Amino acid sequence: MSGVQWRGRLLESVSKNNNYDKIPYMQLATVRGDGRPANRSVAFQGFHGGTTGVLFQTDSRSPKAAEISLSSWVEACMYLPDTQEQFRLHGQASLHGADTPNDLLRQERCRAWAGLPHEIREWFSGPPPSQIPKSPPEAFHHAVPGPKDSPADSFVLGLIDVMSVDYLDLQQGRRQLFTRPHPDERWSLTETCA
Amino acid sequence: MSGVQWRGRLLESVSKNNNYDKIPYMQLATVRGDGRPANRSVAFQGFHGGTTGVLFQTDSRSPKAAEISLSSWVEACMYLPDTQEQFRLHGQASLHGADTPNDLLRQERCRAWAGLPHEIREWFSGPPPSQIPKSPPEAFHHAVPGPKDSPADSFVLGLIDVMSVDYLDLQQGRRQLFTRPHPDERWSLTETCA
Repeated sequence: MSGVQWRGRLLESVSKNNNYDKIPYMQLATVRGDGRPANRSVAFQGFHGGTTGVLFQTDSRSPKAAEISLSSWVEACMYLPDTQEQFRLHGQASLHGADTPNDLLRQERCRAWAGLPHEIREWFSGPPPSQIPKSPPEAFHHAVPGPKDSPADSFVLGLIDVMSVDYLDLQQGRRQLFTRPHPDERWSLTETCA
Repeated sequence: MSGVQWRGRLLESVSKNNNYDKIPYMQLATVRGDGRPANRSVAFQGFHGGTTGVLFQTDSRSPKAAEISLSSWVEACMYLPDTQEQFRLHGQASLHGADTPNDLLRQERCRAWAGLPHEIREWFSGPPPSQIPKSPPEAFHHAVPGPKDSPADSFVLGLIDVMSVDYLDLQQGRRQLFTRPHPDERWSLTETCA
């Protein structure tokens, strides 16, 4: 019940804040191999089916993909400036490419790919992100899969199995903590100090 | 030279994006005691004097203050939706309250306090953040220091000694990495793949 509550509120907040940017971003924190934190914006791609699992897109060749394979714990922070709300989503992330055995995730990956603008789709067929180019960029100027084609191999969906949500409403001075100690357990809700 | 370059660009980008929210927020990632990441929005309070040290405000009683005292490495991510730019600031954070021996930091703390709206100043005199209230909220309803008074004891300035900046311009498809391996060394700049 409480899980449904934060899920619905997040979707409602995203829809209220979509006037300045069509893509809702959240910042995804991971832990690097050396134990230091890393943090970057990722595009929120909605929920996995009817669950409380949160989807985001990434490049399988990016440092964050390597970090998640080393340590799956992440915290995504979404701040919504128009309504002054914040959602902190803590959980474990997994990455899903073309070979995922989960039919629904495969469909969600194709749907996310189809929704990307051309210039973003182009990136996934280009050189690996965050690396110093070894070949001239022209070497990567080959055909970019279209929105209805199979996604580029490097395009993967991240799925956060959310274990706790720290919700803050700055306008109301209200904070709620939703927790689920184990995936099989029910969500519980605690009101805390803002 | 390169350090001055990213500092000027960040200030320019913040001023171009301040139409939807007067307070520019960034998301601050830390590592918890159990090795998992944490992530939340903090208000960007400008630079420490003429340096490349980045200031933010926090409550000395908050979990992030405890995390920083355990492990000082942080990464702040600032996404600016109007110009579609991202700054990832990686470095070590320190916290500075009323007893800081640094005169400039003491002045910056008072200036940051004076710029806070009343309802935020009220929080620093209220119960500790993120905790389940043990006393009724009325127990904390005492006088709130005004903008020209000494800041509440719990109001501390965080200072990030930035060691690297990963700058991404989504509109231009451009990425630049500014690094400074040691505080005494010069900044260097590398162009990488977006």
